[in-house]
Amino acid sequence: MVDQDWTFAPRIYVENTRGRDPAYEVTTEGVTRNLQSICQPAELSCHFADTRNLDALRRADILIAGRLPTAVIAEHAKNLKIIQCTSAGVESYIPFDWLGPNTTLTNASGVHASKVGAFGLMAALMLHEGVPHVATNQRQHVWKRQLRGPCAGRRVLIYGVGAIGGAVAEQLRLAGFRTIGIRRRGAPHPAVERMTTPDRLHEELAQADILILACPLTAETRGLIGAREIAALPSGAGLLNISRSAVLDTSALVSALVKGHLSGAILDVFATEPLPSDDALWDVPNLMVFPHVSADDPDGYIDRCLAILADNLLRARSALPLRNAIDPERGY
Amino acid sequence: MVDQDWTFAPRIYVENTRGRDPAYEVTTEGVTRNLQSICQPAELSCHFADTRNLDALRRADILIAGRLPTAVIAEHAKNLKIIQCTSAGVESYIPFDWLGPNTTLTNASGVHASKVGAFGLMAALMLHEGVPHVATNQRQHVWKRQLRGPCAGRRVLIYGVGAIGGAVAEQLRLAGFRTIGIRRRGAPHPAVERMTTPDRLHEELAQADILILACPLTAETRGLIGAREIAALPSGAGLLNISRSAVLDTSALVSALVKGHLSGAILDVFATEPLPSDDALWDVPNLMVFPHVSADDPDGYIDRCLAILADNLLRARSALPLRNAIDPERGY
Repeated sequence: MVDQDWTFAPRIYVENTRGRDPAYEVTTEGVTRNLQSICQPAELSCHFADTRNLDALRRADILIAGRLPTAVIAEHAKNLKIIQCTSAGVESYIPFDWLGPNTTLTNASGVHASKVGAFGLMAALMLHEGVPHVATNQRQHVWKRQLRGPCAGRRVLIYGVGAIGGAVAEQLRLAGFRTIGIRRRGAPHPAVERMTTPDRLHEELAQADILILACPLTAETRGLIGAREIAALPSGAGLLNISRSAVLDTSALVSALVKGHLSGAILDVFATEPLPSDDALWDVPNLMVFPHVSADDPDGYIDRCLAILADNLLRARSALPLRNAIDPERGY
Repeated sequence: MVDQDWTFAPRIYVENTRGRDPAYEVTTEGVTRNLQSICQPAELSCHFADTRNLDALRRADILIAGRLPTAVIAEHAKNLKIIQCTSAGVESYIPFDWLGPNTTLTNASGVHASKVGAFGLMAALMLHEGVPHVATNQRQHVWKRQLRGPCAGRRVLIYGVGAIGGAVAEQLRLAGFRTIGIRRRGAPHPAVERMTTPDRLHEELAQADILILACPLTAETRGLIGAREIAALPSGAGLLNISRSAVLDTSALVSALVKGHLSGAILDVFATEPLPSDDALWDVPNLMVFPHVSADDPDGYIDRCLAILADNLLRARSALPLRNAIDPERGY
C-alpha cells in the first residue's frame, strides 16, 4: 500500500461550536453514516472547543470544524491531511501560515447553493419592487404607491460568481432578470449573460439596476464598495450584500439610502453579529436587516459538508486534486 | 353592410379617473395608436367624471373607463355595444341590472399577468423565508435567526386560478414550489399540479404551507376565509391576499398572527384604501402591508387594455363572442 493508506482507516477529529443550531453539529452518527461506504475510521471523536482532546487531535488525519483553532492546529495537529471547514468563508484564517505543507484546507463552498439561490432571487425581486421602502413606510403608517413593472430585463450585477453567486444567477435568469457577473479571471458561467473582470467594476456599476455582493472577503475585496462605487450606481438602484460586511462601506451605504440615491438595500451580513440592539442600522430608511440567514439551510447541511469530505477521501486515494481546496495565495 | 358596421367607425367615449397615476390615463393619442389598424373612430373624446359630456356619451358605441358610472350609463348611454373597464375586478358593479341587453361589459383580466406573477413569486418566497417576521423583528431591533430550507417542494394553495392566479402559479412552478389550485369548476391549468373545487377547501387548507387568495370578489367568495379556515391551515403557514379585502376576515387573520398560528401574512388589499394612518393593521406583528401594487404595471398598462378592445372589435365584426366578457350571473 502507498501512503494513501490513511484514507481507508482515517483518524477523524471533530470540533463543534457551542451555541449553534443543533442542525450544525457534526456527530459521530453523522460522520459514520456519510463515510461508511468509503472508509472505516480508525478513530472518530467529536468534541467542543472546551472539551478538546489534544491527544486525539495530534493523531488525527482529518479535522472537521466550523471555527478553526488555528494556533492549536499549528502547535499540535501536525498529522492532519485534510481540514474540512463546515463554512464557506475562511477569511478569518488569513494568512494561512498556520497551515502545514501536507495539510489541505477545504471549505463548504457549494453546500449553500439551493437555499441561497432562492434567497438571492427573493431579495432581487424585493429590491425591484421597492420592498425596503414599503417596510419603512409601514413603520411610519405611510401608504405610498410606487408602481414597478415586471422584473424581466432588469440588470443585476453580481460581484463574485462562485458557488453562491452562480446559484443566485441561475434563479435570476429563470425569473427573467438580466445577469452580469464580475469574477477574478472573467471565466464564463452558464447563468451569467456577460462576465467581466474586477477592473471593469465602475463601468458595470453605472448600468446596474441591482448590485449583489457575493464574493469572498479577501485583501482585494475588503472595502470594495465605498462611496465612489455607490455613487457610480444609477439613482434608484438597489443593493444586496450576502458576502461579508467588510466588502462594503456601511456608512457610505447609509448615506446613499438617507439621501435617496439608492432605492433600497438588503443586508444579511454585519461587522458584529448578532447586530447589537442599539445599532443605528436597524432604523435606517429603506434598509432591511436580515439575521445572516441567506445561505443557511439546516436541513442536510452537515450531510452536504460531509459529502465533500467523502468525495475528497476518494480523490486522495487516487492522488487526485481535492475539491473545495483553499488556495492560500488567493485566499479562498 | 350588416349591423357590425359600427366597428369600422365607432363612437368612442372615455371617462378617466382624477388623481390616478398618469400612466393610467386613457388619452386620444393612446386610443388612436392602439386602434388605428382596426378602425377609424367616427368620434373620440376623453373626459373625467367632472367634465362629463352627456351628449357624446349618449351617442357612444364604446365606453372606456376605470370606474363605471353605472347610474349614468343606465340612464343615458343606451347605445353602448362595449364597455371596456380598465380594471380586472368589477365586483363593485354587481348586480349588473344597470347593464343594457345589447351591451357587453369587458374587463382588463390578463393585463396584469407578467407583473403579478413576479409579485406573487416574491411574496411566496418572502412568506417561506419568514420575511414578515424578520421585518417585525427589525422594528424591535431583534436579531433572531429562523433558518429555512429551500422553497422547492413547499405547497402553495392558490384560491382562484384565473389570469392572476395562473400567472402566479407559473412563476411558483419555475421556482420549484408545488402548486395546488382551487377554481370554480376545477378546470386544469398547466402550471397547477393539482386542481380542485371550492368544496374541497378545508382538506386543502390542512396541507398548505402558503395560501394565496387570487379570486374575484363575488357572493360566493365574500368572507371565504374566516377563523375556521385559518385554523385549518397548518401551524406556521403563511398567507397572501392579492384578491379583495372582503374575501378574508381581517380580524381572524390578525388574531392568528398575534397568537403565532400563522408565521406571516402579506396583504396588498384593504377594506379602505389608502389604509388610514391610524389603522391598527400597520402594527400587527408578522404582517406586511403593501399599498395595492401587486398587479400594477404602469408601463404599457393602458396599451394592454386597449389591445383587448382592439381584439374585441375584430371579434364583433365577425359576430364572434367577445374576450374578457363579464358573465352577469357569475359576477366576473
